[in-house]
Amino acid sequence: MNAVFVNGLVCKNPNYVKPEDFFFSGLDKAGDTSKNLGSNVTLVNVDRLAGLNTLGISLARIDFAPKNGLNPPHIHPRATEVLTVMEGTLYVGFVTSAPEFKLFSKVLNKGDVFVFPQGLIHFQFNFGAVPAVAFAGLSSQNPGLVTIANAVFGSNPPISDDVLAKAFQLDKKTVDWLQAQFSNSN
Amino acid sequence: MNAVFVNGLVCKNPNYVKPEDFFFSGLDKAGDTSKNLGSNVTLVNVDRLAGLNTLGISLARIDFAPKNGLNPPHIHPRATEVLTVMEGTLYVGFVTSAPEFKLFSKVLNKGDVFVFPQGLIHFQFNFGAVPAVAFAGLSSQNPGLVTIANAVFGSNPPISDDVLAKAFQLDKKTVDWLQAQFSNSN
Amino acid sequence: MNAVFVNGLVCKNPNYVKPEDFFFSGLDKAGDTSKNLGSNVTLVNVDRLAGLNTLGISLARIDFAPKNGLNPPHIHPRATEVLTVMEGTLYVGFVTSAPEFKLFSKVLNKGDVFVFPQGLIHFQFNFGAVPAVAFAGLSSQNPGLVTIANAVFGSNPPISDDVLAKAFQLDKKTVDWLQAQFSNSN
Amino acid sequence: MNAVFVNGLVCKNPNYVKPEDFFFSGLDKAGDTSKNLGSNVTLVNVDRLAGLNTLGISLARIDFAPKNGLNPPHIHPRATEVLTVMEGTLYVGFVTSAPEFKLFSKVLNKGDVFVFPQGLIHFQFNFGAVPAVAFAGLSSQNPGLVTIANAVFGSNPPISDDVLAKAFQLDKKTVDWLQAQFSNSN
Amino acid sequence: MNAVFVNGLVCKNPNYVKPEDFFFSGLDKAGDTSKNLGSNVTLVNVDRLAGLNTLGISLARIDFAPKNGLNPPHIHPRATEVLTVMEGTLYVGFVTSAPEFKLFSKVLNKGDVFVFPQGLIHFQFNFGAVPAVAFAGLSSQNPGLVTIANAVFGSNPPISDDVLAKAFQLDKKTVDWLQAQFSNSN
Amino acid sequence: MNAVFVNGLVCKNPNYVKPEDFFFSGLDKAGDTSKNLGSNVTLVNVDRLAGLNTLGISLARIDFAPKNGLNPPHIHPRATEVLTVMEGTLYVGFVTSAPEFKLFSKVLNKGDVFVFPQGLIHFQFNFGAVPAVAFAGLSSQNPGLVTIANAVFGSNPPISDDVLAKAFQLDKKTVDWLQAQFSNSN
Repeated sequence: MNAVFVNGLVCKNPNYVKPEDFFFSGLDKAGDTSKNLGSNVTLVNVDRLAGLNTLGISLARIDFAPKNGLNPPHIHPRATEVLTVMEGTLYVGFVTSAPEFKLFSKVLNKGDVFVFPQGLIHFQFNFGAVPAVAFAGLSSQNPGLVTIANAVFGSNPPISDDVLAKAFQLDKKTVDWLQAQFSNSN
Repeated sequence: MNAVFVNGLVCKNPNYVKPEDFFFSGLDKAGDTSKNLGSNVTLVNVDRLAGLNTLGISLARIDFAPKNGLNPPHIHPRATEVLTVMEGTLYVGFVTSAPEFKLFSKVLNKGDVFVFPQGLIHFQFNFGAVPAVAFAGLSSQNPGLVTIANAVFGSNPPISDDVLAKAFQLDKKTVDWLQAQFSNSN
Repeated sequence: MNAVFVNGLVCKNPNYVKPEDFFFSGLDKAGDTSKNLGSNVTLVNVDRLAGLNTLGISLARIDFAPKNGLNPPHIHPRATEVLTVMEGTLYVGFVTSAPEFKLFSKVLNKGDVFVFPQGLIHFQFNFGAVPAVAFAGLSSQNPGLVTIANAVFGSNPPISDDVLAKAFQLDKKTVDWLQAQFSNSN
Repeated sequence: MNAVFVNGLVCKNPNYVKPEDFFFSGLDKAGDTSKNLGSNVTLVNVDRLAGLNTLGISLARIDFAPKNGLNPPHIHPRATEVLTVMEGTLYVGFVTSAPEFKLFSKVLNKGDVFVFPQGLIHFQFNFGAVPAVAFAGLSSQNPGLVTIANAVFGSNPPISDDVLAKAFQLDKKTVDWLQAQFSNSN
Repeated sequence: MNAVFVNGLVCKNPNYVKPEDFFFSGLDKAGDTSKNLGSNVTLVNVDRLAGLNTLGISLARIDFAPKNGLNPPHIHPRATEVLTVMEGTLYVGFVTSAPEFKLFSKVLNKGDVFVFPQGLIHFQFNFGAVPAVAFAGLSSQNPGLVTIANAVFGSNPPISDDVLAKAFQLDKKTVDWLQAQFSNSN
Repeated sequence: MNAVFVNGLVCKNPNYVKPEDFFFSGLDKAGDTSKNLGSNVTLVNVDRLAGLNTLGISLARIDFAPKNGLNPPHIHPRATEVLTVMEGTLYVGFVTSAPEFKLFSKVLNKGDVFVFPQGLIHFQFNFGAVPAVAFAGLSSQNPGLVTIANAVFGSNPPISDDVLAKAFQLDKKTVDWLQAQFSNSN
């Protein structure tokens, strides 16, 4: 899925629509948290649930490994997210726009809800000893996902290390090492 | 909350916004299903979670008593709903517009997801022997809720029984009895 | 026309567009009010007037037989309606969302206008001795129509009578009888 | 009403809303067509019918004197218009965007409908021997009205006659005369 | 480009999208101001820069000959315009809706910005002795352009001169002469 | 300006609106590029140009120092940006969503245009020997700005260094050093 494809899906001929077009299964299964920094996002957007087309909503299950499972800082270019903790404990937050860059954060327990406004950087972190699970609703059938570290240091082709070294106040050697790390992880 | 108030909430002065404005707690608690046909909806909309204002999303927890807990036929005037079953089994469905009035229904188990498009009549029914729980995302911060039977037979003041008797092909005596039932339940 | 097809119509190649694509005729003719509870809706939406595509508006003529011609309780999933009485007298109303379920109603005479907000149940009833005629504007090129009784009791396939008996506090025998009535009328 | 005030109306407190907020009367009365080029527009927008606020629709009755009653070339900055002829005959049309400037026109009789897309110049002209009446729906609660001749030649203060003479290929004396005419008519 | 084609462009398959789809060149070149009343608009909309599709923005460079180069009164049916003067001096203005028809005008120098709200008639005029250049942003990928004089007097086919003579308070001979002028210029 | 305040500005009473409400001056002046990594953004949004309210557009002038003036990786949560180079040379790019993270980049010269779709990370870099200047249009009156490095490493209060160290694969000492840098720069 690509940013230029925002509204690009055609609707199915209504005569052939069936209940299965509005159905998706498997969100009871925990995602594999052994990779990806100890978290796993199962996103149910219009690509996986065709009946969401034009309707402005999607959802996700997010699993977190115990002891530092992390859904790293990211944004959704076209959606606000509302997250509910089903199991475990999460430290979550988002950062507001310039020039304040305020961090609005909270430790969430089971049954707690938090809002991440459209286009703002946010994260969820399980510092607890047991797995955590959250469900989220997103205000677009195609919210998009921009993982900050991967987009910045792992793009294909890479962003010039002159740019990144200056932007992040790192020496180029560190940038090059980071680019090697994230290039491999994408 | 009233239909004319669709977009009426003013935003808080950003200088005084705090993390708690984006926070809500208590969705881990089962709602009381001993009334209301054996179901209970805990809606988290902009009235209860101010940080949702202007952001186009809200959520709900729905509890169902075992053996026929019912979230009766209803519509959301301003939102599509995406529902996920967390526990138990639900028979769910929605009905399309005239002239087809197709019922799109499905029996959902734990981890199953179903979409109810904006403005269409839908329901969820727990015919199982154990309680059921579902979480739903809705594509508006103020989706609204129109329970069909209550709006039709329990409005205040009541709709003329001439209208309802003809519309539902019932005799007026039955309509008057229904109006008494639903008037009391509102 | 089906709920998933909300925005699905493709625009015509502009080189071949002609005045007739923006034209529709026949709204001076009274609809047949001998069936359908004594009313008849002639809806001019994007299916019948292609030039409305993407433009967010449609219209309808509604005819009512004298002595109880009824446009029964219904909703438009994607549109607000503004109705003007051209001839005769109509008792009209709509019901607000939960938990108030207020009925906002009025007796309208020739030249009177009433607003039915998006997604709320509304009706029009001609209790007068002469035919009534109304014209309505709707805020979508594809507003949709959900006639409550037909969608609830006449869907195809039918909704389980367990659900309907409980939701409407009717015994199953009455529900089955209603389903037979509305199944035939669709 | 002013262009900067596009979305500026506050919603009424829902507790005090009453049926009259959704009601308007008097559209059965013909407007006075003895001035204004022989036409009269009775616009029912959010300023006159508060219940339209946020709902994206308004309506108008347009009366035309016989023998050349004219609703002169104009645009609605924020709405598409759908017009239905109730009585008489109208020559109507709109002009498409640059570079084609195609005129899409039609002679309409009773019961005929025509669409004027948002922001395009359109007109209606009664060349018949009897009065004409039309009703129109518009896709905004605040569509706005820009009468071309009055906006161009009758603005307050006036546009420089250097600009208008060049734009309309008229000599300045003619422009000045036109400005005097339209200044008086506003 | 035609008014019915408002949202008609299909998105490219994301697998084949490349940087050039987001790129356009040549805005450093002055447009030819020897025709068209001494101005020249280079519009970069979705037809010329495919990557703008669905993204709600476009831009333009406008060149003005010295001594009365004019971008004549026009509207954009689907966009607000924000203009910045890069070189020279411009007298600019827009006219508000009926019934006020207020002219909001200003003489702009290098580095000045002015807003022309959606659907309102506006113009820019270089009364200075040197060329002027402006850049503008428009709030639609397909804003459309309706040049008033050309749409009114130069449409194809022409609007009836009965309509135009009455609307503009001109004799028919003058109208016919104007129609000949603008017909040739389109 | 804060993310919760997205649509929160009230319109001015139209009776008191004047031309100056649509006017802004000073974009001919180069911004000070001696700080902020060698770039300077002069954003003209609804806070600085009140007449943009509700109209969905804003603009910016961006100045770049020679030899590595950088507008570092950032996003606009609520707007697409279209940028035109007025002077100099810029290396620009944006990165698409997961999982591809494609970099779409280009070296731009005077008169070249590039599109940065809503919510995607993008940057502009002047590697040339002379200053560069660009103008940009943005598709919101309140686009917002999230500078990636400042939001991630310089938020107030800071994000836990456990989170950042893991997300960016850096040791905590490096993170703490970065946080000290960016905390000072905000």
